[in-house]
This record gives sequence, C-alpha cells and structure tokens, in this order.
Amino acid sequence: MDSDKTPIRVALLGCGTVGGAVAQKLTGNAAELAARVGRPIELVGIAVRRAGRDRSELGLDPALFTTDAEGLVTRADIVVEVIGGIDPARGLILRAMEHGASVVTANKALLAEDGPTLYAAADAAGVDLYYEAAVAGAIPILRPIHESLAGDDVRRVIGIVNGTTNFVLDAMDTTGAGFGETVERAQALGYAEADPTADVEGFDAAAKAAILASLAFHTRVSSADVYREGITDVTASDIRAAREMGCVVKLLAICERTSDDGGTEGISVRVHPAMIPRTHPLAAVREAYNAVFVGADAAGELMFYGQGAGGDPTASAVLGDVVAVARHHVSGGRGPGEIAYADLPVLPMGSALTRYHISLDVADRPGVLAVVAQAFAEHDVSIETVRQQVVVDEDGEPGGEATSHAQLIVVTHMAPDAALAATVDALAALPAVGDVTSVMRVEGS
Amino acid sequence: MDSDKTPIRVALLGCGTVGGAVAQKLTGNAAELAARVGRPIELVGIAVRRAGRDRSELGLDPALFTTDAEGLVTRADIVVEVIGGIDPARGLILRAMEHGASVVTANKALLAEDGPTLYAAADAAGVDLYYEAAVAGAIPILRPIHESLAGDDVRRVIGIVNGTTNFVLDAMDTTGAGFGETVERAQALGYAEADPTADVEGFDAAAKAAILASLAFHTRVSSADVYREGITDVTASDIRAAREMGCVVKLLAICERTSDDGGTEGISVRVHPAMIPRTHPLAAVREAYNAVFVGADAAGELMFYGQGAGGDPTASAVLGDVVAVARHHVSGGRGPGEIAYADLPVLPMGSALTRYHISLDVADRPGVLAVVAQAFAEHDVSIETVRQQVVVDEDGEPGGEATSHAQLIVVTHMAPDAALAATVDALAALPAVGDVTSVMRVEGS
Repeated sequence: MDSDKTPIRVALLGCGTVGGAVAQKLTGNAAELAARVGRPIELVGIAVRRAGRDRSELGLDPALFTTDAEGLVTRADIVVEVIGGIDPARGLILRAMEHGASVVTANKALLAEDGPTLYAAADAAGVDLYYEAAVAGAIPILRPIHESLAGDDVRRVIGIVNGTTNFVLDAMDTTGAGFGETVERAQALGYAEADPTADVEGFDAAAKAAILASLAFHTRVSSADVYREGITDVTASDIRAAREMGCVVKLLAICERTSDDGGTEGISVRVHPAMIPRTHPLAAVREAYNAVFVGADAAGELMFYGQGAGGDPTASAVLGDVVAVARHHVSGGRGPGEIAYADLPVLPMGSALTRYHISLDVADRPGVLAVVAQAFAEHDVSIETVRQQVVVDEDGEPGGEATSHAQLIVVTHMAPDAALAATVDALAALPAVGDVTSVMRVEGS
Repeated sequence: MDSDKTPIRVALLGCGTVGGAVAQKLTGNAAELAARVGRPIELVGIAVRRAGRDRSELGLDPALFTTDAEGLVTRADIVVEVIGGIDPARGLILRAMEHGASVVTANKALLAEDGPTLYAAADAAGVDLYYEAAVAGAIPILRPIHESLAGDDVRRVIGIVNGTTNFVLDAMDTTGAGFGETVERAQALGYAEADPTADVEGFDAAAKAAILASLAFHTRVSSADVYREGITDVTASDIRAAREMGCVVKLLAICERTSDDGGTEGISVRVHPAMIPRTHPLAAVREAYNAVFVGADAAGELMFYGQGAGGDPTASAVLGDVVAVARHHVSGGRGPGEIAYADLPVLPMGSALTRYHISLDVADRPGVLAVVAQAFAEHDVSIETVRQQVVVDEDGEPGGEATSHAQLIVVTHMAPDAALAATVDALAALPAVGDVTSVMRVEGS
C-alpha cells in the first residue's frame, strides 16, 4: 500500500436498478471500501438520460447527476457502465479508455457482440476491462474461469444463466401449466419483462454463452457464433415427458470442447432447452436462480450457484470489479486481458454431439417399430432406449369403432446433431407415424 | 504483454501426490501455459527429502530433483510449496521471499498458524503470496471471497471443507453403520489416512475455517481462535435422529459475523458436526466432495462445489495461482495482500448463537415434561419443538414387570451456546432424566 490518499474517482453511467444499488453502496460503504483498496473511492458523477426524474429515494447528492456522459467519462479513473445495449455504451466505454480510465461493465450484449474491440482499446490505453456482472449476476464465475482455472484445461461449461427462463420452466414443471400462461404469471411477479423476447428466445443466454466460451477456451466467440433456440416451443407435454424420464427441462448455455469426445476438433457453443436428469446438480436450480457447471481436466467437476440478476446481487459483482481495478491503481499492474491464442474453430450446430428424446404418435400395428428403428439406422443414429405405450381413443362418430394407436418414446445415444435432426424429419414423413409430438435434446448424463 | 521472452523460473518444494501432478502439468502443458502468461514458465528444480527414490513414473527429467531446498528457492521467480506442515516449509517460504520470489502454497496449517508472518514477509519483499489450494482443493473459493466479493459484506461462510469426514458421515447416513467401522472402510478405500486424527478431530477443517474467516471478515484469525469438535463422538443413533428430523449430519466449518443477529459484535469461527435440513444445498454434498456456502449482504446466497482434495484437483488450484503470479511478473503489479483492517473480535464459543437438538431418555410419568421444560426456561432457552415417544421395555428379570419410559426429543430456538450447554448439564442431573442420548447443533435453517 502506498501513502497516497488521493481518492480514486469513479463515474457511473446509468442509474437503473443496478446503477442505483452501485451508487448507494459506493457512498454508503465508503469507509470499508477505502480500507480494502488502500485509498478512498469517490463517486464523481452519475450519467442519466433524463435529468429531471425524481431519484430522491436513492438518498444521493442531486449534484452527482448529469446528462453529459461524454464529459463525465473524461474525469474518472474508473468508469462503471450499467446502461446496457450496444450504443451509446460502446462509444462511452471507448472514450473513457482513451482518456485513461479503466472500465467495469455489466454489458453482456456489447461484450458478446464486440468484446475484441473493447479489449484492444483497453490494451492500447493500458487500462483494465472487468465485467464479472455480465454473466450470472452475483455468482463469481468469470474470475474463476479466467484466473482460478488459468492453469487447467476447461472441457465443458454448462450454465443456467437466465433467471426468467429458469423461473418459467421451473413453474411449468411445478404447476403443469403451459408456456403462455406461465410467462404471464412471471410478468405479474416481476420475473419477466413486458417484452420477454430477449430472455425467452435465448438471446440473453446466448450472449452469456459467448462470453463464457471466450474465457474458457481462449478463443474469440461472439453472439453470432452461438446456436440459439429459446423456450417458446416448450410445451406442458414436453415437461411431462421429461418428468416421466426422471428429467427436468432447463434452458442451458453449453460450451464444449469437442476434441476429446470423438467429434471434430473445435468448440460447440449453443443455447437450447434440454432435459437433464433430476440427479444432476443443475436440476436442483429452482426459480430465478442461476448456476454454472464447469468440467476441467484437472479440477474435475465444479459448480457455482447463486442469484443471477437483481440490483443488489449484480451490484455486488460490479463492486468486486471496482475494488479489483482500484487496487491496481494503488499497487500497479493490470488484470489479465484478452487471451485468445487458442483460436479454436466454432463448429456448426450440425457437428455438435447431442442426444435426442423423441416422442412419436404411431399406428398400433405390427411392423411399425421396425420401420421407425430403420429410420434411425439409416441416419447412423443409435437408440439407447425405446418405450411403447398403447393409447385407446374413443372415436367421436356415432357408431364408430374405438381406434387404437401407440406412443413411442425414443432416447438416442450421442450423434451429430444434424443426423438427429434429419432422423426426426425422416420420421415425420413415415406413413406409420401420425405425429412427432415432442423432440428435445438430453444433456448432463 | 511485453516482448521479453525470458522464462519465468518455478521451483517446486515437495513431490508427493500434489507436487507430482503440478510438475507434470508445468512440463506437459508448457506451451499452453506460456500462451496464457505471455512468457514461458520453466520448472527449474524440485526439492525432495530423499534423492534416491524412484520417481520415473512421473516422466520428469531426473536432473530436476535436488535435496537442496535452501539453494533451490534462491534461483526461482516463483516458489511452489507443497511440503505441508510448519517446518521446514515456513523457513523455506520466508527465504524464498527474501530472495525476491513470489510464493504459491497449499499449506493450510502454516497459513492458519502464522499467516500474518508470511503476509508481512511478502509485503516487505514486494512479492505475491497465493494459496487457493489451501482450502477446498480445486474449488475456487479464496479468490471469489478475497476479490469477487471485495465490494460486498460477507455475513456467513459455511463449508464442508474436509473430504474424509464428509465421506465418513455420508457413508454412516447411507449404511446406518457406526463411526469406527466406517472409518475403517474409508481407510481401506483411501479416503482416510492411516492416522485419521487431523481429519476426524477437525484440525484440518479448523485451519481452513481460520483462512476463510480471515479473508471473509478482513480480520486475523488463527487456528487457535477456532472452536473445534470432531466427528469421533457422532453415533449411528445421532445419524438416525437427524434422519427423523429430515436432516443430515455434516462436519461444518462455520464463520459468522454476529452483529446482525442480536449477538455481540464480532465473529464466530467454529468447526463441529451439525444437523442440516436435507433441503439445504450443503446436504446434497456427498462422498468426499467439498462445498462452501457464502451469504453476503448484496450478493445473497452463493454456493461453490467441487473436489476438495486429490493430486490433480489440488494441482489445478496451484497452477491457477502460478499463472496469476506469473502474469504479474509479465505485466507488473501484485495481487491483493493481507487486508486485516476490520480487526473484529473472535467471540468465545459460549457467545455463539446456535440451536440444539437434544434426545433424552426419561421416565414415563406425569410431570416429567414440565420438569424438563423448566430446565430450559431457567437457562432462558426457548424450545421450538418437542416430541415424546413412549418406549416399552420387557424387564429381563423372571417375573419382573414390563417397565415403560419415554424418549423426549427437543429442538431449541437460537440461544447462546453456553446457555444451551448449561441446559444439557442441568437436564443430565435431573432425577427424571435417565440419559441424555444425543446432543447435536442444528444449522442452516
């Protein structure tokens, strides 16, 4: 620790739920933070879009607020960006770095779209870029992957990184209700936005998957590289089918290195709903909680669990980064920057090795199972289990006969996703198959 | 990154399970590590006690081995100490720092006994002291507490940090067997040492509790400050009693800040067996796995889970530290040192607020419950639940009458541990109480 007691100046961009919590803690907890850093931390300004809004409930000095973000970033040692979105956040971050400020951000969308530009600007300016809050809120996950596991080789990261979708899927599992009505309930309870697209279509999780994969595999991965399926097509019957398998449906962000499992050398980065066994640690993650499961060569299996969103939890992650960066101001040095030497190819979804759970409605007559099995064999997909249930429907016509059909449930072994998808198409075209009632990937076994 | 490509010299002290794994990964994974650090990392020597031992299965250059640890530490930039124990480890670490080397160690006993000396030496020499591997093996827990949560206020850390005792308690829960035979089984399977004292008496967990509390509360805590009870007195009937409560018995390392719960301002650091509800995340930690639960003001509840011991998992943590320290050699700066400004008092066990589960064997006659309840009241201990079961024994004497007695199970509300212990003493002295058959603390509700 040096004897210089000049305050370290922090500028805050944005004063929503997260920004408000950050500002309150920076000011309310100033003495503790100063003791931890070795120098005082001073909040010098908060850039907001609308100056006139009543923010008195935050208990902050009104003189802190400004609409001049461009000016504010030039008079800070550390700029905290919690505006979100691509612009104007990107321009302000770059401007802050040009003026010698380190940056702490929670902006997953920007990092996943244009992280390399931000890293390059941080390198050029010799400043820090920290963003623990961008993935899984309060859960320390980026620092563990980027630093704690820096001497290990990560093979797999599987995360529940979006609280809204986990809340919806968990509620569907608990109540048996459908997607639409559950989203409405989540909106009423404040777990889903009025426009839930970014969450339920998987855009938010895909951005986080890109960030996790970049750090885990020392490779540049952007949102555009991430295969993405949301949860809007998950039905109550999918959830029931999962339950019958001893599984639960989760929206997973999956980052895998494929060199060790017989696939093409490279990485697979994808977001989609999947069934996982109820015995898997991720299955126990309820409501809006987040968790990230990491598999590494030497460390083995690790799991990180906690709150993935909310003002206070996200502020905790932001402030941890502020303290880390401020300590560098005191003792010199910088945190680790972008490490992208590995430059592994991001494989197309068709090459990813996955397993499918497929429910089929078929005619109940001899030979149907053989025809179905043949469709799998023709696509080189091997079947792990098949289960047949006969279903008898009363025909609605007066005097009509009762007809019977069967439900076939097939779980495959691992195969390239393209082969599995082609198998499903082929099954749908078979005359003996009335309907493909549910298709879902199976993970975590 | 600078353009200097001079190798960073690493000396390894100790070549047991962990040391061997570290040496193999440093040499076998050299190109990856160099890319991550920005400069090559060169293993310059391995200090061992016996030079002649056959270590050929490690596949290392025999010229690396030396018995001259004192000499070796003077020719390294980073010294990795995995000898364990107090001496000669302490002297070698101090000597390494005097010669300008940063130190990475897994030595929980030394850190918990004399951490401040090591920190002071690191400060004086301007070098790093890292020790992620000292607590919970591969699980990144110290860096998250020390760095990720540096802007938050930790209230509580509850850890399963000793794999041997968790294996034993889990096996007792699964099989119903007693402590002695389960320890023998654990020894046969390699989960317990020939002399299991350090594990089963809680010494190992106590050292880890001291390290966790120091970082979580910015206060110096040594092993001697930690209240410690091992698991040698845990019986099959305690485990059964826990099961009947919907609980499981775990050896917990508990670090609590007591200012917010009505107790005296300070911290409680303790290791003891306790019942926790089966619904608590820590209850699901099976076999020799470790997990640490952290409660912080803003972050809320976090959990970290993984392998707590073993050569490869521990080597993962050591190598993460080596990379962090090596990066400082490349880009300048140091990691955060000791932060002990808070200097909170460590409260005696008697002041800790705990809950007790007490089983009593009592005479089955009117008025006994009143007498028992009175003993609790006299110590100002409030009862949460009480359950009475009548037990009928056949008298062994020919012509003797069947006698009946009752089992009383009492779970208290929170009270100072001293009041609870005094209550148990008073109960044991009551004429109506035949025997206090089980006493255990209850946590995590």
